[in-house]
Amino acid sequence: MTGLVPGPGPRAADPHPDGRPTADLHAAEPRAADLRLAELHRSLSDPLLSAMTFLNEVTARFPEAISFAPGRPYEKLFDPDSIAENLAAYRDHLHAQGLDRGQVRTALFQYGRTKGQIHDLIARTVANDEGIHVPADAVVVTVGAQEGMLLVLRALFADPDDVLLVASPCYVGITGAARLLGIPFEPVPETDAGLDVGRVAEAVGRVRAAGRRPRALYVVPDFANPSGASMSVAQRERLLALAAAEGLLVVEDNPYGFFTGADVRVPTLKALDRDRSVVHIGSFAKTCFPGARLGYVLADQRVVAADGSTSLLADALAQVKSMTTVNTPSLSQAVIGGLLVRSGCRLREANAEGVAFYRRNMALLLAELGRHFSPGSGVRWNTPAGGFFAVLTVPFAADAAALEVSAREFGVLWTPMESFHLDGGGRDRLRLSCSYVDPEELVEGVRRLAAFIGSR
Amino acid sequence: MTGLVPGPGPRAADPHPDGRPTADLHAAEPRAADLRLAELHRSLSDPLLSAMTFLNEVTARFPEAISFAPGRPYEKLFDPDSIAENLAAYRDHLHAQGLDRGQVRTALFQYGRTKGQIHDLIARTVANDEGIHVPADAVVVTVGAQEGMLLVLRALFADPDDVLLVASPCYVGITGAARLLGIPFEPVPETDAGLDVGRVAEAVGRVRAAGRRPRALYVVPDFANPSGASMSVAQRERLLALAAAEGLLVVEDNPYGFFTGADVRVPTLKALDRDRSVVHIGSFAKTCFPGARLGYVLADQRVVAADGSTSLLADALAQVKSMTTVNTPSLSQAVIGGLLVRSGCRLREANAEGVAFYRRNMALLLAELGRHFSPGSGVRWNTPAGGFFAVLTVPFAADAAALEVSAREFGVLWTPMESFHLDGGGRDRLRLSCSYVDPEELVEGVRRLAAFIGSR
Repeated sequence: MTGLVPGPGPRAADPHPDGRPTADLHAAEPRAADLRLAELHRSLSDPLLSAMTFLNEVTARFPEAISFAPGRPYEKLFDPDSIAENLAAYRDHLHAQGLDRGQVRTALFQYGRTKGQIHDLIARTVANDEGIHVPADAVVVTVGAQEGMLLVLRALFADPDDVLLVASPCYVGITGAARLLGIPFEPVPETDAGLDVGRVAEAVGRVRAAGRRPRALYVVPDFANPSGASMSVAQRERLLALAAAEGLLVVEDNPYGFFTGADVRVPTLKALDRDRSVVHIGSFAKTCFPGARLGYVLADQRVVAADGSTSLLADALAQVKSMTTVNTPSLSQAVIGGLLVRSGCRLREANAEGVAFYRRNMALLLAELGRHFSPGSGVRWNTPAGGFFAVLTVPFAADAAALEVSAREFGVLWTPMESFHLDGGGRDRLRLSCSYVDPEELVEGVRRLAAFIGSR
Repeated sequence: MTGLVPGPGPRAADPHPDGRPTADLHAAEPRAADLRLAELHRSLSDPLLSAMTFLNEVTARFPEAISFAPGRPYEKLFDPDSIAENLAAYRDHLHAQGLDRGQVRTALFQYGRTKGQIHDLIARTVANDEGIHVPADAVVVTVGAQEGMLLVLRALFADPDDVLLVASPCYVGITGAARLLGIPFEPVPETDAGLDVGRVAEAVGRVRAAGRRPRALYVVPDFANPSGASMSVAQRERLLALAAAEGLLVVEDNPYGFFTGADVRVPTLKALDRDRSVVHIGSFAKTCFPGARLGYVLADQRVVAADGSTSLLADALAQVKSMTTVNTPSLSQAVIGGLLVRSGCRLREANAEGVAFYRRNMALLLAELGRHFSPGSGVRWNTPAGGFFAVLTVPFAADAAALEVSAREFGVLWTPMESFHLDGGGRDRLRLSCSYVDPEELVEGVRRLAAFIGSR
């Protein structure tokens, strides 16, 4: 969830330029042991991945440009001294739970429980912050939300005709994971008001008409990446009714939910879920920090075996996880666990500063756009109710070539929307992220963007 | 690489008993939203996984038993205070590299480079410790060796007829990952002297005769899990010659290589690799600690695209990784990175205490077996040259039922070898791990084991 591209964005943390020359590996003469790209897995030749590589590369080439490209959190919210404080708080918490010194050592150093060791703290936190009530053993602690997506897709999709529905434009982490696993997906075109349940129903019909099964829908209902759109409560209720009627699971991904533009809270799909139709994926990347790579899945669905015995979907996810990462690093769990303990398992309140920052930046972005582009300019944008992203529509192709010019000649970076569209749209749109820049940079960045757009 | 089962073993770190009742989820009446196990991914119904679940469960039920089951490192080698010391050392290292306070904050908190941030430290360490020379950008830092296996399998296996060769008996992490991805595998029966290259050649022939392609061979050449067997230098050289001749990649997994039984060092396959036939997977779980979940892949193979442009296999692995975990947690990299810095990138020397401990315990295990079982007893065992594991052959079925009796009536746990065999063998064998127990426990554990075996 770095934004367009999971992985290194502009200003990527790479303090270690590679120390050894690799020129010999790129030397001209072929060697018998060379591998051919065409013989590696097809996901590696996907045009989407080539686009990603180009975008990472172009942004890395212009480190001095002001960047509206990455979906990264604002760094000045991070305090290096907090790591040791949170670790200490977690150790104290374990001692308070009755663990002796040896048991605390085990918790920090040894292999751990596959589903995680801070599952109860997470269950309490989502209850406090979101009104989501699931048993702690329905929580799977994952290496970021990305691993959660991989586990959910792997567990749920068994048949080659099981189809994943996704909004288009769509976050590339889910479609990329689907491609790794060879899972087919069907785009549901998003409207300006976010995902429309009527269109979901149409997609379900299309999939069924083709003799395939719509297994699950992936959706970011709050301040979606990349569109910034959100679903209304009425649409959420309709979606849950459709899901129950159609036997469709809803995979809800919610990294931006805290960052509302006003003091209005819309319940998550999981909080509204009465039928256990929703598998909820959470992330601490934006509410704590990305370097911990900590996320979770809430999977309280019951799984019934042929002999009638039951287990939780969370246990199936754990079985998959034992073959992906074994368990989530205890250091990351300890630091985030300490932070949860210190916040009284109320992370929303602990995020007050971040919420206020992103709220001001989004308002400032929209105001600056209004200052630079008049109604007759041919430039339009949406007005997200919160989150990190807004989408600008421009009267030209906002493609990779245009981005290159924008970066080199105008010193401003953004993300072409066409990379997120699964159905060929978005060529005249670009995504602006307001999360990573100082307000002063933001103002200057929009000035540069206006100069670039005026030059086309 | 916890031993038999990645994931929770006996005495799993689970300080948080689940706080909420889950009885309602297991209630008798079916609900519309229930999932059927038969409709989840087929890997979840694999008999192997059911066996794993049973074994985890039986060991968890007997926490007071002496356990020869898990391949876990000895815990008293861990020092809780070292976490903060290593973190501080890594921060100092970054500052010494010229990073300012803001850049250090970025390195610790923000999304990072997909291939990792301690790649150069790892490249220096494997050069010092193993004589392996690869450029730092051929290193991919992973969430444990397990993620490395997943990335390598996903990148290399493109066609449904690409077959993975694996030793039998085999570590379940590789076969489990192959099952997640639907990759077929062909067992190569191990001999008492480890993997035999003649048998590998036979397996290559079998696969080709069936019209399929032998894509790669997975092997743990040093003190294999589960057999404890090691390949001789001559076998290693022959394997590399076969690999080059057949266009077969060798995936070398080397978690136990430091833990030699005597001061004799056999070079890794990667150190002997002149044709870039070897993809090397490393783990810090045994040489540092498992909770960091830190591993790496050395993938210096050149990948040639259709247009003639080249890249490294490491870059393809990174593309896959961006869809599994995005990047490896910076906290884990910082703590292990600090440890590498403090050791002068000489981890073998830093492991002197562990090497001595495991060496003593293996010698003690073999001596105690010799004390309890006479040549006429029908009980035999191998004599591994190092590592964590030995295999005992007994005159009865060493199966799950026998394990249950051993645990309940005799207070000693071990692992049935049949779970590791891919071809139906191993029913009269059991694996003993000497890594996790104190010497006194080990002596008492063998006494109990002898009593159990005597009772059959």
